[in-house]
Amino acid sequence: MKLLKDLLEIQSVSGNESSMQKFLLNLILQRMNTWKVLPKVYHGENFHDCILLKFGNPRTAVFAHIDTIGFMTRYENQLICVGGPELEDNILLCGEDSLGPILCKLKNIDGELFHDFPRAIDRGTYLSFAQNVRIDDKFIQAAYLDNRLGVYNALKLCEDLVDGWVVFSTYEEHGGGSMPYLLKFIMEDAPVKQALVSDITWVTEGVGHGKGVAISIRDKYIPRRSFVNKIIALAEQSGVTFQLEVEDAGGSDGREIQFSPYPIDWIFIGAPEDHVHTPNEKVALFDLECMIEMYRYLLPHL
Amino acid sequence: MKLLKDLLEIQSVSGNESSMQKFLLNLILQRMNTWKVLPKVYHGENFHDCILLKFGNPRTAVFAHIDTIGFMTRYENQLICVGGPELEDNILLCGEDSLGPILCKLKNIDGELFHDFPRAIDRGTYLSFAQNVRIDDKFIQAAYLDNRLGVYNALKLCEDLVDGWVVFSTYEEHGGGSMPYLLKFIMEDAPVKQALVSDITWVTEGVGHGKGVAISIRDKYIPRRSFVNKIIALAEQSGVTFQLEVEDAGGSDGREIQFSPYPIDWIFIGAPEDHVHTPNEKVALFDLECMIEMYRYLLPHL
Amino acid sequence: MKLLKDLLEIQSVSGNESSMQKFLLNLILQRMNTWKVLPKVYHGENFHDCILLKFGNPRTAVFAHIDTIGFMTRYENQLICVGGPELEDNILLCGEDSLGPILCKLKNIDGELFHDFPRAIDRGTYLSFAQNVRIDDKFIQAAYLDNRLGVYNALKLCEDLVDGWVVFSTYEEHGGGSMPYLLKFIMEDAPVKQALVSDITWVTEGVGHGKGVAISIRDKYIPRRSFVNKIIALAEQSGVTFQLEVEDAGGSDGREIQFSPYPIDWIFIGAPEDHVHTPNEKVALFDLECMIEMYRYLLPHL
Repeated sequence: MKLLKDLLEIQSVSGNESSMQKFLLNLILQRMNTWKVLPKVYHGENFHDCILLKFGNPRTAVFAHIDTIGFMTRYENQLICVGGPELEDNILLCGEDSLGPILCKLKNIDGELFHDFPRAIDRGTYLSFAQNVRIDDKFIQAAYLDNRLGVYNALKLCEDLVDGWVVFSTYEEHGGGSMPYLLKFIMEDAPVKQALVSDITWVTEGVGHGKGVAISIRDKYIPRRSFVNKIIALAEQSGVTFQLEVEDAGGSDGREIQFSPYPIDWIFIGAPEDHVHTPNEKVALFDLECMIEMYRYLLPHL
Repeated sequence: MKLLKDLLEIQSVSGNESSMQKFLLNLILQRMNTWKVLPKVYHGENFHDCILLKFGNPRTAVFAHIDTIGFMTRYENQLICVGGPELEDNILLCGEDSLGPILCKLKNIDGELFHDFPRAIDRGTYLSFAQNVRIDDKFIQAAYLDNRLGVYNALKLCEDLVDGWVVFSTYEEHGGGSMPYLLKFIMEDAPVKQALVSDITWVTEGVGHGKGVAISIRDKYIPRRSFVNKIIALAEQSGVTFQLEVEDAGGSDGREIQFSPYPIDWIFIGAPEDHVHTPNEKVALFDLECMIEMYRYLLPHL
Repeated sequence: MKLLKDLLEIQSVSGNESSMQKFLLNLILQRMNTWKVLPKVYHGENFHDCILLKFGNPRTAVFAHIDTIGFMTRYENQLICVGGPELEDNILLCGEDSLGPILCKLKNIDGELFHDFPRAIDRGTYLSFAQNVRIDDKFIQAAYLDNRLGVYNALKLCEDLVDGWVVFSTYEEHGGGSMPYLLKFIMEDAPVKQALVSDITWVTEGVGHGKGVAISIRDKYIPRRSFVNKIIALAEQSGVTFQLEVEDAGGSDGREIQFSPYPIDWIFIGAPEDHVHTPNEKVALFDLECMIEMYRYLLPHL
């Protein structure tokens, strides 16, 4: 879990993912020689803060977003949201501006947001939840499990992946914007017909802790039914514990695949979490294991 | 009207259009030898559940969506919407899951939706309005006239079309997603500068039954005025009865043409219906005839 | 200011920009021989009502939208909006239909909009604010400073631009739709990695008249932080007065760059205005000068 803890400590609120990109790139370059297949690595200014790994001859692409929700300073101690964070009063926030490190509290006064830092903070400074990782024998609890666990799952998948794209995207929490050029590159370099979204979903009345990885039949958007059926059939063959999700809200990198100019089937597969978009996101370790096992099974069989 | 009745009996809620695709493809392959010009037919996994027909040297593309609104089962007898169906209590719904056919009623309890089927239904099962087609000498009334009539119009157009694309799209009722790759294919294979959306619109205070096909000056989105003017001028020349629509809500496949990376002019032309998105959609037969005649006139003249 | 006054007199509500396109094209063809570098001019049906100017070897593209907000007639003296105009009762509107010129007042009756013209107006007729340009030694006030000033800035930039795209876009006020094909053309003809949005923003509690051009760290959408930092560093070097904006609402042509399939960094840089989307938009002349100076500095240095 050392790797997971490291991932959880890095700030990368949407639009400001460069630290996470550097950490990941360094990690990939160090580790990839131990992987079963050596991927081709695509990164740099033509990919902004994204990274693409191409293993063998891809039939499927896996996407994991590396950004998180957070806040930005406006004028007069005001804060505005990046993505959709929960807005509980007194949540601890951290960041850094031209005058140095910042640690302050979120003040939610009738829906207007402020910080309580004793000095003015530079306009447009990013703040994120102060991190507090808690792991016991059943659960992990921390800020930003969404989507550090999805990134972690993608990195575990790399270890023995033979054919496939593993892609680290940005901006997912704030409307997107990297998926269109990532998909264009993939489809022109080594096209695929299928995509899996490695991300974290919600515990609800129908999806619970400890019941395995969730396969999402739909969220706000609806993947093509024939592909959903194919995935469920493979999931049943796999022997890995899973549960089926049916929601009418929420979105993911899958949304941008749906609306892309390519006929790519997509589906969201990920462990469910409680306390979504708070500093206390909570995931059952069993569900995370099932997520990792499910991806390991699906990629060779798709 | 046998063909229209057949079309109305097939379920194809957004995301699950494969039955409709199969029916249409079979029909096209059977009939196309009787058409004035033999089209080239594009279908299969590269087009998901869409079908494209290329006649001669296209200058214009006609789009008709083959999906419909409907419902999906969630957890504990809950239903969620696909697209925007009307939610009247006790509407009859039908579908099928792993245990067999389903016929049940929609229960709308303070905006929460349920079914009353006596057993649990598989998660993520599609349900649609039970069909009840009623035709007299003036009107047709049924579920899903939107957009079976648009599909029917497109098929009638095929009979003597010389140059043009006729395209059957999916997902229109639920945000879209097939138009981007259909447009990309068209623009790379045999590009066009003009598009007509063969779909059904609303009876309003300004658009009535029996007053001809509606030409939409705008809905939520606004086609380019110079193209609207060109269409209206041709419509006047045609001698076919038409009425002009001006709305600030609603959308169609035209939306995705507007936002595509191609400079394609588009306009929505279709008969108006009452009781939109209910099992009792109602269209005047005269307006449907005008729609068919208008497309027959426009395609050669555009 | 003669040029600016001329620009302010031309009607070009979104979807109906052809008059503005003709005026601009004529102006460009007349003036471009006096510019430092002769641009290549792209226009015509493949670009709808947009115009692109390519100077030298572009590294950066500048976008200025030529459309404005306005109104359209519906049925029975009703009006509906194009874009998001302010809806003050008794605002003077003008336009023209098949029967001749129109001058009337907007009547806002409990949020329902009507005109008071003594005769019926053709369905789907565009109306815009009657123009009233007021200039003193400190301020300019008129309808449609948004975005005639952005267009004016772009034209001033052309005078000594060596390398870069200057692009006049349409439909920005009503959801967009020209940017996707403009970006596609640019990226296939002479690609860039950077874009500036030449548009007008809002006076707020943090952005005031006379404090220089606003550089927007974000609006509803968030440009990449590493690019924002690069722009701010250059702005500081420039010596031109500027202020930093941080908003969580509003959008621009930058939105469509963000969601395009190209990794292009973008930022919004423009003078702030008061009385947004009314006939009385007001901008400090000093801020307009700073906008012009800032673009003159940035283009060669980016």
